[in-house]
Amino acid sequence: MADLTPNSSFSLTLRLQIPNRVGMLASVTQAIATSGGNLGQIDLIEQTRQESTRDITVDAASTEHAETIVQVIKELPNIKLLDVYDRTFNLHRGGKISIASRIALKSVSDLAMAYTPGVGRICKAIAQKPEEVYNLTIKQNTVAIVTDGSAVLGLGNLGPAAALPVMEGKAMLFKEFAGIDAFPICLATQNTDEIVQAVKHIAPVFGGVNLEDIAAPRCFEIEQRLRQELDIPVFHDDQHGTAIVTLAALYNSLKLVHKSMADIRIVINGAGAAGVAIARLLRKAGAQTILMCDSKGILSTSRADLTEEKQEFAVKAQGTLAGAMQGADVFIGVSAPGVLTPEMVQAMAKDPIVFAMANPIPEIQPELVSKTVAIMATGRSDYPNQINNVLAFPGVFRGALDCRAKEITTTMYLEAASAIASLVNPADLNPEHIIPSVFDARVAPAVAAAVQRAAREEGIAKS
Amino acid sequence: MADLTPNSSFSLTLRLQIPNRVGMLASVTQAIATSGGNLGQIDLIEQTRQESTRDITVDAASTEHAETIVQVIKELPNIKLLDVYDRTFNLHRGGKISIASRIALKSVSDLAMAYTPGVGRICKAIAQKPEEVYNLTIKQNTVAIVTDGSAVLGLGNLGPAAALPVMEGKAMLFKEFAGIDAFPICLATQNTDEIVQAVKHIAPVFGGVNLEDIAAPRCFEIEQRLRQELDIPVFHDDQHGTAIVTLAALYNSLKLVHKSMADIRIVINGAGAAGVAIARLLRKAGAQTILMCDSKGILSTSRADLTEEKQEFAVKAQGTLAGAMQGADVFIGVSAPGVLTPEMVQAMAKDPIVFAMANPIPEIQPELVSKTVAIMATGRSDYPNQINNVLAFPGVFRGALDCRAKEITTTMYLEAASAIASLVNPADLNPEHIIPSVFDARVAPAVAAAVQRAAREEGIAKS
Repeated sequence: MADLTPNSSFSLTLRLQIPNRVGMLASVTQAIATSGGNLGQIDLIEQTRQESTRDITVDAASTEHAETIVQVIKELPNIKLLDVYDRTFNLHRGGKISIASRIALKSVSDLAMAYTPGVGRICKAIAQKPEEVYNLTIKQNTVAIVTDGSAVLGLGNLGPAAALPVMEGKAMLFKEFAGIDAFPICLATQNTDEIVQAVKHIAPVFGGVNLEDIAAPRCFEIEQRLRQELDIPVFHDDQHGTAIVTLAALYNSLKLVHKSMADIRIVINGAGAAGVAIARLLRKAGAQTILMCDSKGILSTSRADLTEEKQEFAVKAQGTLAGAMQGADVFIGVSAPGVLTPEMVQAMAKDPIVFAMANPIPEIQPELVSKTVAIMATGRSDYPNQINNVLAFPGVFRGALDCRAKEITTTMYLEAASAIASLVNPADLNPEHIIPSVFDARVAPAVAAAVQRAAREEGIAKS
Repeated sequence: MADLTPNSSFSLTLRLQIPNRVGMLASVTQAIATSGGNLGQIDLIEQTRQESTRDITVDAASTEHAETIVQVIKELPNIKLLDVYDRTFNLHRGGKISIASRIALKSVSDLAMAYTPGVGRICKAIAQKPEEVYNLTIKQNTVAIVTDGSAVLGLGNLGPAAALPVMEGKAMLFKEFAGIDAFPICLATQNTDEIVQAVKHIAPVFGGVNLEDIAAPRCFEIEQRLRQELDIPVFHDDQHGTAIVTLAALYNSLKLVHKSMADIRIVINGAGAAGVAIARLLRKAGAQTILMCDSKGILSTSRADLTEEKQEFAVKAQGTLAGAMQGADVFIGVSAPGVLTPEMVQAMAKDPIVFAMANPIPEIQPELVSKTVAIMATGRSDYPNQINNVLAFPGVFRGALDCRAKEITTTMYLEAASAIASLVNPADLNPEHIIPSVFDARVAPAVAAAVQRAAREEGIAKS
């Protein structure tokens, strides 16, 4: 029934009225366990002599699974289901971010300094000396999270409004992990020229631009043009964030299986934004043999349907993903749910490394090949080895903003990947711990420091 | 020397080392008072047997005045000036607003609900039912504060970066007075088509658009087109915010001088965004005789240089502002510092009402005509009767967002003005109290209620 393990994205809170008799609460927990739900917190809401009202949190594996659990509880004798809350939906109601004042505004004097007439002095100071915008406004710490909603997570072209929850979540991550103020810009256009134009028009407020969930190949041109035309750093997280963390995870995986970057055969499935950026960065890091596949199989020089970016990685070989996987050392998936089969993994070289990063459902369920692989990583927070961009982008922008780097470079990506990999202590390195936890507070500062160092060496730091 | 009374926009903190001897601190306070500074807080920072370090806050009337005060203190015997802080500049360092998470992000489970994979369920829900964006994202409470920097306060065309401190201040006011999350959008274009296009492109995130500090006549077309082409409310605060509060102040002023809207002769000086909107709203409120002036004098049908909006108010009369002021009952200035002379005020009808709202320096210094006028109002927070848009826009947007009004109408402006005026109790109404304080917590809810009522009556509320 459930194709994944239960997780918090399908988390319910059931409000139940339960008689105060021996075995009653147990009948509930038993039923949840039997139907495959993961029991979380149990809160006592109120209690009379006869009965208790409790909120019971249960993680399910899917929407259908959640419905099954609710049905099972409904059918329990003597138990009354008062209400069901979907915790994920509840958490999103009203949105996830807000604007806060950094200064109290409680008196006429506060108003006269923060707003008119005092603010006029600040405006004039910036008009006279444009660099002052970095001292006297939010620009120094503010990033635009820009999307056109054309490639929302792995869900496809949902449009700008449906992309907003992701951008809000991203803004939360920027704040939580790097103290950066980021704001969602969801554009009502999917035209390359219009996107470039819109971002240029709104740029004065921002110290950096994080492109997000924009479909390939459009995303490549948009990033390239914005990098040329803006004087603030531009970073397409789906490309470079993913590439940085993938490289970090690969560095540490190779240590575990005692293979070297130059020798391994790498299959990358998915030739979109992430796939192309990963391939480019792995090459810079010394990878020699990369086979890229898209939904039609290996990117072969014999194919006539390849975009410019795909041609960069076209090889003489032809065939399907299954063919490419024969003898491969590493599989990197940034594609679609379930496209990798256990058979393909069995056909890999000794000590297979599988990064199945499709979101929210990976290329292969880790459970299916747990005995076959040497190392398994996914994009999910509910499995070990989460290859999560949050390890990269907060620190990358923190570093870039702090030294006012005018751009974010390939050298920075490489340095950031090394910095992330180095945070896993050799003594702690094992197949279920190839990258730091997203909650490891050392990560963002280490990445920021690496980025700043690179910026200074490359001479692109402005402060 | 100083052309205005001291105020917090030129507020200094002087850090002084003062010997612990009788008369030493007094010599400082005496010197400040003599040089015309306004003494504020005195903080003891540290103290030894011999001397004390104190921070003394002083309001000056201008930058030059502040420098004079500093010079006077420097010359005092035995007093050592350790440091001078400009409080307004200090307050602006790093910007005035930030992004806050509304939800804790401390565990893998939080991440899985707020971000991937859980957020994917929310995206799909919005893609399937677009109206859900109002429930599940920030859109319901988020307003874009849009400027092109072409008319920043009364300071002119300073450009988008120099306008940002005002937009940040505005965002603070939205939050403080109506709990609205507003974000600055400072556009790097002053082309009407491009501004309209940019705002349409970024609209998906926002529940409303507040246009700000965009020069006339461009602002009229931009507002009109955006109102037609967007399905969220658009409000140009410099026009309608100013008009609403001016009308509220005029309603109460007329009660004090016992004149009626239909009978009075009104001179509006300044035919920009605010002037035109005030004239339009006063007409809707029943004003019959309005003489509008721009920098070339009365808007006369004999002039060939009038924009479309100015032609709306052109009259047969010709002449200068001084001519227009002969026998006028009301002067409303939304123009430039110092253009109104005491002689012009003396030429007005009995019980002159003068609203000198140029910012930051009014059309006439209130001190110059304090004996001549019946009622004086300005745009400043450091004089009585501040005609401040903050009395209108927070409540207007609160009301519009709460009922999901698809636009903001003239009926709403009129209702909002009446609501503001009605908050001054007849017993409290006097020439120095014609409008509520900006810190009167009743204002925004009263305006919001009036706007909602109007929206429902006009059938444009969507929830």
